[in-house]
Amino acid sequence: MQTLIQSVLTLQGDTLQSVDLLLIGSHIHTVAPAGTIPVAPHPRVIDGTDKLLLPGFVNGHTHSSQVWQRGLIPQLPLELWLANVFGSTPQQLEHLYWGAVSTAVDTLLSGGTCLMDHAYVIPGQELETVDALVRGYRAVGIRAVVAPLIMDLPFASGFPAGCLLPQSASPQSPTQLLTLMEALIAEFHDPDHGIYIGLGPTGFHRCSDELLQGCGELSDRYQLCYHTHLLETRAQHRLAQERYGISAVQHLHNLGCLGPRTSLAHCVWINDDDIAVFAETGATLVHNPVSNLRLGSGLAPVLKSLQAGVNVSFGCDGAASNDAQNLLEAIKLGTILHTVTDHDYDNWLTPEQAVQMAAAGGAQGVNLGDRIGTIAPGMEADLVLYNLNHPSLLPRTNPLQLLILGRPTEVVEAVWIRGRQIVDHGQVLTVDTEALHQVLRHQSLDTEDLQTQHHPIEPHYREVMLDR
Amino acid sequence: MQTLIQSVLTLQGDTLQSVDLLLIGSHIHTVAPAGTIPVAPHPRVIDGTDKLLLPGFVNGHTHSSQVWQRGLIPQLPLELWLANVFGSTPQQLEHLYWGAVSTAVDTLLSGGTCLMDHAYVIPGQELETVDALVRGYRAVGIRAVVAPLIMDLPFASGFPAGCLLPQSASPQSPTQLLTLMEALIAEFHDPDHGIYIGLGPTGFHRCSDELLQGCGELSDRYQLCYHTHLLETRAQHRLAQERYGISAVQHLHNLGCLGPRTSLAHCVWINDDDIAVFAETGATLVHNPVSNLRLGSGLAPVLKSLQAGVNVSFGCDGAASNDAQNLLEAIKLGTILHTVTDHDYDNWLTPEQAVQMAAAGGAQGVNLGDRIGTIAPGMEADLVLYNLNHPSLLPRTNPLQLLILGRPTEVVEAVWIRGRQIVDHGQVLTVDTEALHQVLRHQSLDTEDLQTQHHPIEPHYREVMLDR
Repeated sequence: MQTLIQSVLTLQGDTLQSVDLLLIGSHIHTVAPAGTIPVAPHPRVIDGTDKLLLPGFVNGHTHSSQVWQRGLIPQLPLELWLANVFGSTPQQLEHLYWGAVSTAVDTLLSGGTCLMDHAYVIPGQELETVDALVRGYRAVGIRAVVAPLIMDLPFASGFPAGCLLPQSASPQSPTQLLTLMEALIAEFHDPDHGIYIGLGPTGFHRCSDELLQGCGELSDRYQLCYHTHLLETRAQHRLAQERYGISAVQHLHNLGCLGPRTSLAHCVWINDDDIAVFAETGATLVHNPVSNLRLGSGLAPVLKSLQAGVNVSFGCDGAASNDAQNLLEAIKLGTILHTVTDHDYDNWLTPEQAVQMAAAGGAQGVNLGDRIGTIAPGMEADLVLYNLNHPSLLPRTNPLQLLILGRPTEVVEAVWIRGRQIVDHGQVLTVDTEALHQVLRHQSLDTEDLQTQHHPIEPHYREVMLDR
Repeated sequence: MQTLIQSVLTLQGDTLQSVDLLLIGSHIHTVAPAGTIPVAPHPRVIDGTDKLLLPGFVNGHTHSSQVWQRGLIPQLPLELWLANVFGSTPQQLEHLYWGAVSTAVDTLLSGGTCLMDHAYVIPGQELETVDALVRGYRAVGIRAVVAPLIMDLPFASGFPAGCLLPQSASPQSPTQLLTLMEALIAEFHDPDHGIYIGLGPTGFHRCSDELLQGCGELSDRYQLCYHTHLLETRAQHRLAQERYGISAVQHLHNLGCLGPRTSLAHCVWINDDDIAVFAETGATLVHNPVSNLRLGSGLAPVLKSLQAGVNVSFGCDGAASNDAQNLLEAIKLGTILHTVTDHDYDNWLTPEQAVQMAAAGGAQGVNLGDRIGTIAPGMEADLVLYNLNHPSLLPRTNPLQLLILGRPTEVVEAVWIRGRQIVDHGQVLTVDTEALHQVLRHQSLDTEDLQTQHHPIEPHYREVMLDR
């Protein structure tokens, strides 16, 4: 299968250029000046006039099950919000399947071709859950990393001292969890078809050193992405001080968990030394600006991290802490938000940098930097074609600035993943999106009492976290 | 003309309730429990099932001419960005007409029924410009306040000492400008048809005391809105200290410019005493979160202002500092942004508060608090009906949270302004939006060299504002 995209605007380095692009099979074969690749032998020709072609973006951190909790949980700090999330997480495989499909569709239609699903798995049905998610991603045809959320410490462990939580049941042991992960890798890891298993310990706050380290060993053995929440909140920052007496980043580094295959969601409460460790180890910071504001987590030091040479990518985070799954929205906010942290406008992020972070940075964060994230011969063809005639991208000024700093809607015209066209004329070709919407419309959760699960904890949390 | 909207979800106080709503002429006549208003005598009946009805929001601050500069000007601090804005502002009446139409359409389709156009007017063609804008707003049928940007100090006056700007030409005298404003009021102020003239001195940084005070006197005499930029940037804060030795807010207050008809755009650099003055005088703070981040202006003290009893509304600001004109986007960002300024989550803004600020708060900010902004008998019927079946508002959880914290697109199903239906099935009924898009597509500005107008100023600005 060959596809020729003619005379399309694209970003080469830091400048927009009009090029011809030849895809053969799953790869980009040729990128040449516009009008220079002959048409004749190529079966499918696409006119790139008034279009912009960019590498697919990567949603570096989400939780697909939370599609069902979109719009459900009031604004609260993570620790209290979590009590409500746990109380309302769907427990049916069918719901989780549709959550994956919905997340994939939203990703495609907002510029993404790959996502990291830090995935809730139903206890006792872990293989079945991952099977449902993978079926969803295969059905859509999106590239996906599924990193099951695993933990071996109870919920109460995620709180600083003094929160007086009731003892909750202990999850599985590290050995059980690592055995489970090996089974999942054997069953589902399928890089040739764009499906990957990642190691996803929830975070240091809910994981023993044994589990954190064991995940690192599996990541090394199978060359898989290691993905975890890190220092998202002030409470986690305090907890790390209490538990380790040193920075959580340094602790993870001492355990051997940080490296170029590691991606760390949030990192709001890291300091300059932590940033230096990221730069040294090649770990990726996944920035989730919508979620960080929605949960009041704070501002991740994105500009400082970039200046120190850290790879930074963007994530939506789950729909329970974002109430949407629009990657372009997360990228816009992540691009303009950090002006408040630095008066020197030379350090502010440009649309070109944002594209680089979302595409190449995102690819590196999911351990695929050598395969996707740039438009160049030999790279896999994960591409998004935007319609520059859409009213939300008018008038004709700087297309990249309109896309990244504007509020584009329904501008994704076509998407290719591994050379296969998944979206055409703004419609997903692989799944019945109307069926998806019917499911979302008619199978909503029973939401009664789901917003009050934090009530027993709240007074203790308030006393510990606000009284000083 | 009577319209009956049956069994529609709406916000009554802080709770969602299903009601019947009867509109007669331009007003809301009855609001009653769902199913209680008989159908028979009413010619137009609308089924409110799976819909949400809210009072129309007010875009409390924008500049319609900047539609043409959307996506054009790189991220820079206001003072440098302005040099590029001035260099690229459209100078043809036709462009300004379409800018008004575009701004009105974007406002309608993102939940707004009223806007404050702090309007650029072509020097020497002031009446013709306002005529073009008013024609645009009348054509769409939106409620609009047109407050021409007037100033009597040169561009260089807007910079702190040391910026060494070349002397620019002095604009018109205060007397000339005030005479002009009286002529505009006589010609165009038409409250019975939803068109209002406002007094819009650019800001203290570009206006003499005589002009600021003169505008206040006209605002008093004709009972008009007084609208001005205030302490948007750190440079303006420094300038106020240099020029007045006291807070700019206190200075405006001493001039008698602050009162319940005053609305002040931005107010990023106000202090606690300034907030107290706003609360005491009843002035409105118009919060423009997208623009404030885009230009690196900073975070306005929104939570503190609300706690002090200040009326706060939302604005998009112009499309040159926002790259969109989506009111729902500005409201979402303004709702979640301020969590970073206050650890106490009891102070965070809820979706219900956001609706109140955007509707009733916005109405008060444009001096229309007794006419619009709430759904109650006797109020004018400025209403927006949202389609809760749209995929971006699924699954069915809290509709208000989905609307305010999600990323809704194409969810506005119907809009009434002064009882007249302006939007139906998501389509604007009054103007040909395809013609608008053709104009935007084919008449884009010649953008060459428009992004470098700040170069001569930049080194001086950098030295003054960053070297400490």
